[in-house]
Amino acid sequence: MAPETIIALDAMGGDNAPAMVVRGADIAVERMPDLFFKIVGNEQLLKPLIGGSKYLKSSNCLVIHTDQKVEDSEKPSVALRSGKDSSMRLAIDLVANQEAHGVVSAGNTGALMVMSKLGLRMCPGIDRPAIASFFPTLKGESCMLDLGANIECDSGNLVQFAVMGQIFARLVLNLKRPTVGLLNVGSEEQKGHEELREASAILRQIDLPMEFIGFVEGDDITAGTVDVIVTDGFSGNIALKAAEGTSRMFTFFLKEAFGSSIYSKIGYALSKTAINQVRERMDPRKYNGAVFLGLNGIAVKSHGSTDSFGFANAIGVAADMSKYGFLDKVKDELRILHAEGEASEKLRGTGDA
Amino acid sequence: MAPETIIALDAMGGDNAPAMVVRGADIAVERMPDLFFKIVGNEQLLKPLIGGSKYLKSSNCLVIHTDQKVEDSEKPSVALRSGKDSSMRLAIDLVANQEAHGVVSAGNTGALMVMSKLGLRMCPGIDRPAIASFFPTLKGESCMLDLGANIECDSGNLVQFAVMGQIFARLVLNLKRPTVGLLNVGSEEQKGHEELREASAILRQIDLPMEFIGFVEGDDITAGTVDVIVTDGFSGNIALKAAEGTSRMFTFFLKEAFGSSIYSKIGYALSKTAINQVRERMDPRKYNGAVFLGLNGIAVKSHGSTDSFGFANAIGVAADMSKYGFLDKVKDELRILHAEGEASEKLRGTGDA
Repeated sequence: MAPETIIALDAMGGDNAPAMVVRGADIAVERMPDLFFKIVGNEQLLKPLIGGSKYLKSSNCLVIHTDQKVEDSEKPSVALRSGKDSSMRLAIDLVANQEAHGVVSAGNTGALMVMSKLGLRMCPGIDRPAIASFFPTLKGESCMLDLGANIECDSGNLVQFAVMGQIFARLVLNLKRPTVGLLNVGSEEQKGHEELREASAILRQIDLPMEFIGFVEGDDITAGTVDVIVTDGFSGNIALKAAEGTSRMFTFFLKEAFGSSIYSKIGYALSKTAINQVRERMDPRKYNGAVFLGLNGIAVKSHGSTDSFGFANAIGVAADMSKYGFLDKVKDELRILHAEGEASEKLRGTGDA
Repeated sequence: MAPETIIALDAMGGDNAPAMVVRGADIAVERMPDLFFKIVGNEQLLKPLIGGSKYLKSSNCLVIHTDQKVEDSEKPSVALRSGKDSSMRLAIDLVANQEAHGVVSAGNTGALMVMSKLGLRMCPGIDRPAIASFFPTLKGESCMLDLGANIECDSGNLVQFAVMGQIFARLVLNLKRPTVGLLNVGSEEQKGHEELREASAILRQIDLPMEFIGFVEGDDITAGTVDVIVTDGFSGNIALKAAEGTSRMFTFFLKEAFGSSIYSKIGYALSKTAINQVRERMDPRKYNGAVFLGLNGIAVKSHGSTDSFGFANAIGVAADMSKYGFLDKVKDELRILHAEGEASEKLRGTGDA
């Protein structure tokens, strides 16, 4: 049997916590029996939920009690000061103290970012963590970052995100030279914010096992034009949610249309398998589990409104990253890339391309 | 017969210009026989296209020749200086000189913005024009602005966009009190850029026939949470294109799934009418025709990659705005609202809410 993977869970984060978290852990441990959970949260609420679960038992989970939790509306700075005994913070600390291999939370994104940054610290050469996630495209799967950790990004942040993103895609999607693009409002060189044009100029000079193709637009995301889409957390979050919303609208319209006549009802019955294939292919829960890249530890953010199936997938991302030694690989490559990054900074400083 | 509506067309703008433009005019004039077109562009190219059309003839269109056109890759500032005889500029000038009721172009958005701003001038109280368009939602139809005219926006610009957007929705969607939201990465008051928080504070104080509900997120766009979504042109453009791309992906996956087995093929045949309903409901060509709000004239931007059907709809938007006296209504209300805006500026200046 494979060595145990210990995942710390913030049981109190997310719209339907803690029930959704416990059920998610239950689904995850059924899939991956070598998981062990350290579930941090209100014991009185957690014990009956665990007692009523199918696969969670004393041999594969441990409850760590705390009354405190970070509210969704809490400012990250406030959460950082006053949330030292919150379920989120204690779960992160388990990873920081090497008592867990990774942490998963569906709570306040900003708080999770600042707490993880403080608790796990940053990789050398990276100023800010970025939230990265995979999503379905016409060509397969691509990854986008940042999805909401950093609202304001300068060109240096964007370059670092590109560097981390291509490593992530290279390892997880098993690509030799991932293609990378910067999200913009046009593909022409003079378009968009100053920081995007600057980042583009730097990325064109850096020699990495990736292919930087320049600017991409919003519709390139699902077109799969590139393997890695790099953007600031504001645009990334809006693009992701706009795509999710459109998906939901399409599904709803389709459901309504299929129920509109006896022919379409029979048609639906006959094409149910096909339609379910599409639904499964685009199911946002399948892509739930966004990784904070750039940290010195594994921290996975689940969508706040996900269900237990989605949360189980986020646990799966954390478990896989630990099992595949993802963090060590990222750290090794970042060390090399950081040196290259410095070289390119100098290049940039001379004003010569 | 209703009085003639004269629409100036930039025949050389758009991926498939000028053929797409002429065919679009042909479709539009079939639908609205009281239209008259002033088609600006290369006569040698236009004459045979018009000759080969079904409904365009010398009684309903006039070709105004020019060799010059604005390239898609051209910087707006360059287009403004050197494009004085371009098809785009001459078409705008027809509106400025009251020789046409509105102008439609599928060309370079930035160039169309700066040229329209110079040629048509701004409404009093509005600093920058915003591109606004309608899109399908779960609840019907909503409008979003800015979709790409202004990459950088301060809080004052966003407030002006909100004021214009609610008038647009009130008149075109025939709503008494449209709901308005600011696009952000969370609905909590402390989220997002400083300019968004400032704009939100101002909008909460302004007394207008609208309901400002605060911040909305990317998935609220298609959910139809509000009638008017206000955002900067960078985020708006990315959200719009991310939604369009997702729509295309969904359609493609569905097509593939329906072809995957004999059952699903029969199912498709039976549900074709229902599926076409969905396709029609979400057809981006139906929503083609984005209006530059805030100008002292009607200027409609068509999607650059649209076909003649989509271009005809953009012509329809310009024609409808002229027929319904949209511009006068907007100007009247803006005058009143501008006075209110100044009052709220003063309120804001005192630091008291």
